[in-house]
Formats: sequence, C-alpha cells, structure tokens
Amino acid sequence: MLEAVNIAQKLAKFDEHWSPRIAGELNDCYIKLARIKGEFVWHHHDDEDELFLVIKGRLTMKLRDGDVEVGEGEFIIVPKGVEHKPVAEDECHIMLLEPKTTLHTGNVESERTVTDQPWV
Amino acid sequence: MLEAVNIAQKLAKFDEHWSPRIAGELNDCYIKLARIKGEFVWHHHDDEDELFLVIKGRLTMKLRDGDVEVGEGEFIIVPKGVEHKPVAEDECHIMLLEPKTTLHTGNVESERTVTDQPWV
Repeated sequence: MLEAVNIAQKLAKFDEHWSPRIAGELNDCYIKLARIKGEFVWHHHDDEDELFLVIKGRLTMKLRDGDVEVGEGEFIIVPKGVEHKPVAEDECHIMLLEPKTTLHTGNVESERTVTDQPWV
Repeated sequence: MLEAVNIAQKLAKFDEHWSPRIAGELNDCYIKLARIKGEFVWHHHDDEDELFLVIKGRLTMKLRDGDVEVGEGEFIIVPKGVEHKPVAEDECHIMLLEPKTTLHTGNVESERTVTDQPWV
C-alpha cells in the first residue's frame, strides 16, 4: 500500500545538520530532506542538476556570480557544472531532488561528505 | 543568473484546473505546478514513477486497493504501472515531478489530456 509522506514529521526525526536523509525514490532520483545551518562547501556536480526546495527558513545559494535568496515555498535548480555553496544563517529545512548517483558534496571530498545516506 | 522560483506566485498566474504548467527542469524531469479540483481519470504510466506534493489543500489519491489522503506538506510517489485517480473535493495546489516523457493522463487519452504543456 502506498503512503503519504509528511515532510515535517520526517524532518522531526533527526537533528544533524548537512546530513540529508532519503524520504522517497522515483525513477532514478532520490527525494531527500535535510536540516542545514551555517556554511557548506563550494562544490559542483559534473553530471547532475540539483533542486533545493525550502520547506522552512531561508537558504542563501552562493554562486560565483552572486547570491540567490531562496525563501519558504521557493526552489532553485542548480544546473550541472555550476559551482554553488549553500548557506543558512539560521536553521533551514530543505527538500532536495537528486539523481541517485549524486554525492552531496559533488566534486569535493570534505569532512562534510556523507557517502552512506540513510532513509528517514 | 539563476533565480528562485516562488511556487505560490507561479500558481497565481493561471486559473485552469488539471492543466499542469512547467515551472522548472532538471536532468530529464520537469517540475510542474497544477491546480486541481474534482476528479481526474483513472490511468497509469507504463515507465514512469510520479511524485505529487501538496502545496495547498488536500488530495485524495484513489488507488485500486484503497484511497490515500495527502495533505499540505505531504507527498506521495505513485510507482510506474500503478493505476491511480487524483481527486480533490476542494481546490488543491500540487507540485509534480515527472520525467519529460510523461503524459499526465498516462495510458489514457481523454478530454483531459494536455499534450503541449506550457511553462508558467
């Protein structure tokens, strides 16, 4: 039996920042949920576009040619190859859509890199 | 320059029910927005899973083995091959994620079928 997934309830199940949890899969993509706060690392994805939908709070997407503010109920799509650095001054909750092959730190291996992303 | 897409603002730009508008594209998928009210047609997609995220209101996803209620801030993923019939008693706003190849009425050609889906 199929079920509805409540985004807020899923986000309430974990506390860690910058540690996306898988909340669904369709076709070759994962729907992921994450809590973010502070600054991530500059990175890009060679082959994958990436969607960030803000569920709660505000995301600043730093790009090499300027910043884009993404508020609640807004999304931004970062095309493949485009360097970006997500920043959230206060805690922000986001939904991500990424191909299953995507590593969240893209071309950069850092202490932030999580390779074994769990379901929530 | 990349831009944030405000979902509510995009939805305010059209009135028609059951007429999805494309609001973004990533990889081989479209992000679509739709206003729905009433009953859609029973259909399935042979090769594509489909995501329905409720932005406003309530969606009833009728399935052959029962109904699933999907409220605001919730999503449901209907796997390929699964017959479904979206119903909304009152007007409901949804975000869809679908492969670009997806026809919204799936295997069924009906008066509801829109083949030339515009951007919003």
